[in-house]
Amino acid sequence: MSDHVYKKLELVGSSPKSIEDAIRNAIETAGESVRQMRWFEVIETRGHIEDGKIAHYQVTIKVGFTIERTT
Amino acid sequence: MSDHVYKKLELVGSSPKSIEDAIRNAIETAGESVRQMRWFEVIETRGHIEDGKIAHYQVTIKVGFTIERTT
Amino acid sequence: MSDHVYKKLELVGSSPKSIEDAIRNAIETAGESVRQMRWFEVIETRGHIEDGKIAHYQVTIKVGFTIERTT
Amino acid sequence: MSDHVYKKLELVGSSPKSIEDAIRNAIETAGESVRQMRWFEVIETRGHIEDGKIAHYQVTIKVGFTIERTT
Amino acid sequence: MSDHVYKKLELVGSSPKSIEDAIRNAIETAGESVRQMRWFEVIETRGHIEDGKIAHYQVTIKVGFTIERTT
Amino acid sequence: MSDHVYKKLELVGSSPKSIEDAIRNAIETAGESVRQMRWFEVIETRGHIEDGKIAHYQVTIKVGFTIERTT
Amino acid sequence: MSDHVYKKLELVGSSPKSIEDAIRNAIETAGESVRQMRWFEVIETRGHIEDGKIAHYQVTIKVGFTIERTT
Amino acid sequence: MSDHVYKKLELVGSSPKSIEDAIRNAIETAGESVRQMRWFEVIETRGHIEDGKIAHYQVTIKVGFTIERTT
Amino acid sequence: MSDHVYKKLELVGSSPKSIEDAIRNAIETAGESVRQMRWFEVIETRGHIEDGKIAHYQVTIKVGFTIERTT
Amino acid sequence: MSDHVYKKLELVGSSPKSIEDAIRNAIETAGESVRQMRWFEVIETRGHIEDGKIAHYQVTIKVGFTIERTT
Amino acid sequence: MSDHVYKKLELVGSSPKSIEDAIRNAIETAGESVRQMRWFEVIETRGHIEDGKIAHYQVTIKVGFTIERTT
Amino acid sequence: MSDHVYKKLELVGSSPKSIEDAIRNAIETAGESVRQMRWFEVIETRGHIEDGKIAHYQVTIKVGFTIERTT
Repeated sequence: MSDHVYKKLELVGSSPKSIEDAIRNAIETAGESVRQMRWFEVIETRGHIEDGKIAHYQVTIKVGFTIERTT
Repeated sequence: MSDHVYKKLELVGSSPKSIEDAIRNAIETAGESVRQMRWFEVIETRGHIEDGKIAHYQVTIKVGFTIERTT
Repeated sequence: MSDHVYKKLELVGSSPKSIEDAIRNAIETAGESVRQMRWFEVIETRGHIEDGKIAHYQVTIKVGFTIERTT
Repeated sequence: MSDHVYKKLELVGSSPKSIEDAIRNAIETAGESVRQMRWFEVIETRGHIEDGKIAHYQVTIKVGFTIERTT
Repeated sequence: MSDHVYKKLELVGSSPKSIEDAIRNAIETAGESVRQMRWFEVIETRGHIEDGKIAHYQVTIKVGFTIERTT
Repeated sequence: MSDHVYKKLELVGSSPKSIEDAIRNAIETAGESVRQMRWFEVIETRGHIEDGKIAHYQVTIKVGFTIERTT
Repeated sequence: MSDHVYKKLELVGSSPKSIEDAIRNAIETAGESVRQMRWFEVIETRGHIEDGKIAHYQVTIKVGFTIERTT
Repeated sequence: MSDHVYKKLELVGSSPKSIEDAIRNAIETAGESVRQMRWFEVIETRGHIEDGKIAHYQVTIKVGFTIERTT
Repeated sequence: MSDHVYKKLELVGSSPKSIEDAIRNAIETAGESVRQMRWFEVIETRGHIEDGKIAHYQVTIKVGFTIERTT
Repeated sequence: MSDHVYKKLELVGSSPKSIEDAIRNAIETAGESVRQMRWFEVIETRGHIEDGKIAHYQVTIKVGFTIERTT
Repeated sequence: MSDHVYKKLELVGSSPKSIEDAIRNAIETAGESVRQMRWFEVIETRGHIEDGKIAHYQVTIKVGFTIERTT
Repeated sequence: MSDHVYKKLELVGSSPKSIEDAIRNAIETAGESVRQMRWFEVIETRGHIEDGKIAHYQVTIKVGFTIERTT
């Protein structure tokens, strides 16, 4: 149990609503192809501005998930 | 089109409500003197505490905007 | 007044709701044993994922508070 | 449109000619298996020396590309 | 030969024995699906504590491997 | 002479040709409104990809220039 | 359960034997006054040299432990 | 009051005397065109050497000042 | 002797006089409750500005001190 | 073979032509006194500006070379 | 005694056995030409992989040693 | 003139008096064996504490000096 191996993916999620919602979008999209996601780490928070207002947040995260070992 | 030049300003916005609201305050204030803002990057998130509670969030961002070239 | 000395504690707060709520939990817990808290700095934002969804946010902060000098 | 999700790959391209050519090699190789590449970020620039001369540049980049969401 | 392209994966290996053993677990697990691994870089070393003792080390590494170009 | 004061601006130049050309564009644009520029520092190198090819490089620099003191 | 709050201590352990042993010394010493330690993070690895040989390793770690909330 | 917005300028002050004096020169020069300066942060300390002696210190600081909002 | 364990505290000292004096204030205040202090590391140097002049320096340091082991 | 020891030198090369040419100048100059250079790493890219134009690039690199062991 | 001056060398040691052994190789090799080594700092840990296994660890360290002043 | 090559040495100076004096000691000691020193960069500031007081400052600097090219 203590010798699990994890892989990390780097993703950028975006949302017009909030930082949390941008993270959620990234994780749900990753979940369509990756199972056994365990944690995320926020790497960078940025966003686009249109007409002087925040158009959307863009949050870069790393997502860690368990790799099934074949042995 | 591909040789645009951008300038970045460093701003600190604050808000008693949320991190997003502090970013919004910084961008709206910048918009009073700068046009053509295109993106922001969050540099640091901090805040003040009063009587054991968060008094306001202070978020440092860089705002990038297009410089009009005279040539 | 200008020769105040502050101490910083490093804390990790968590919350299923939001980044702001995780910060708030850390500060309120610190407030049970520390008085005169003055500011916080966000060091890292991460979180746990369960069943493909964000289970909770984990935000590492440093909290600065005034040390009373005995002299 | 504003809730796009991107994935980033980390690649190292090399070239005996220039830093730009090493980046180009990495991106063209990535393009053989990834579509919808949108941007790159240079992470590190190094190189090998043979007989007292630069044998080739090695440039580590991250490449961001759009993930098609199935929903 | 000098225009090889490499890809880097980010992995977390764990082991109750040692830092080196945690790195070894990550590399051997990666080797089940990736060939032509060439080097690794240690990014972070952490671990879990149970009953006041180190339960296992967790070492985050990047593994670089050669991409076969089709051209 | 030894108590000169300098100010730094942060700029992003872009160019479809090369990293050096992107730096040059940023500096020449800055030169339209700032005199006495003395040095630059490269902060970040990135770029846009279109149809699997580098569309343009984007180089973030800081430009230092002398401030004339009125005293 | 998901709103646990943790505190981190920064410690330096030393050992003439190995990096792992230096970490172990730090954690066991911390365990004399702190309960509920959960994880550690290696911050820095250094050491002293005497007569041209490694005299001991010095490893700086952060140790995270659960704070019991009184509410 | 809690939704103040601040702007940061990056300056390099120099002085043959001391690090503190180089900071002071930068701030006093900034004060000729900027009002409402509130804080500074030291970013980098360097200096020039002439004839084997320190000719002057060069200290890069960021200066934060309040922006008056028009609304 | 070689398996000493040290703890680090993070403190902010301030002084209207100099950076060195701000460090000294932090260390002397720490010395009121901690014995066996061995070294300090400067983490950050900042300061407050009032009426266009430096009001006081604020220096963040880490202070390392020996922990007495009970075994 | 696997217990080679390397030493790294830190050099700054300059060139009015390009970043690559500045690296080349540094390596060729190093080659006048050091043999068995194996790799370089770019640490920083800066440059001087004269009359509103790039006068020369200055690139800081580290150069690694094999140390011959006498045993 | 308190105005000692130290110089730091940057070295890369390698070993097929362990991280500690790679550090030891670097220090012993340095000891063939440098006396009065006092401490080391680990800067980076990497390694080569051959046939899916760790071929050797490569550890970059800085070694500090006392410079004898002639005055 | 514009293709000068510089080398950087990393030194630690110490002084019981001040940060500036520690830098000065390092530069003057370096000047006993190196000519044509041009600039320094402060990398780290630390110090030793004895009996609850600062015993001496230890400042790590890099010193850049011109290499005479033989060609």
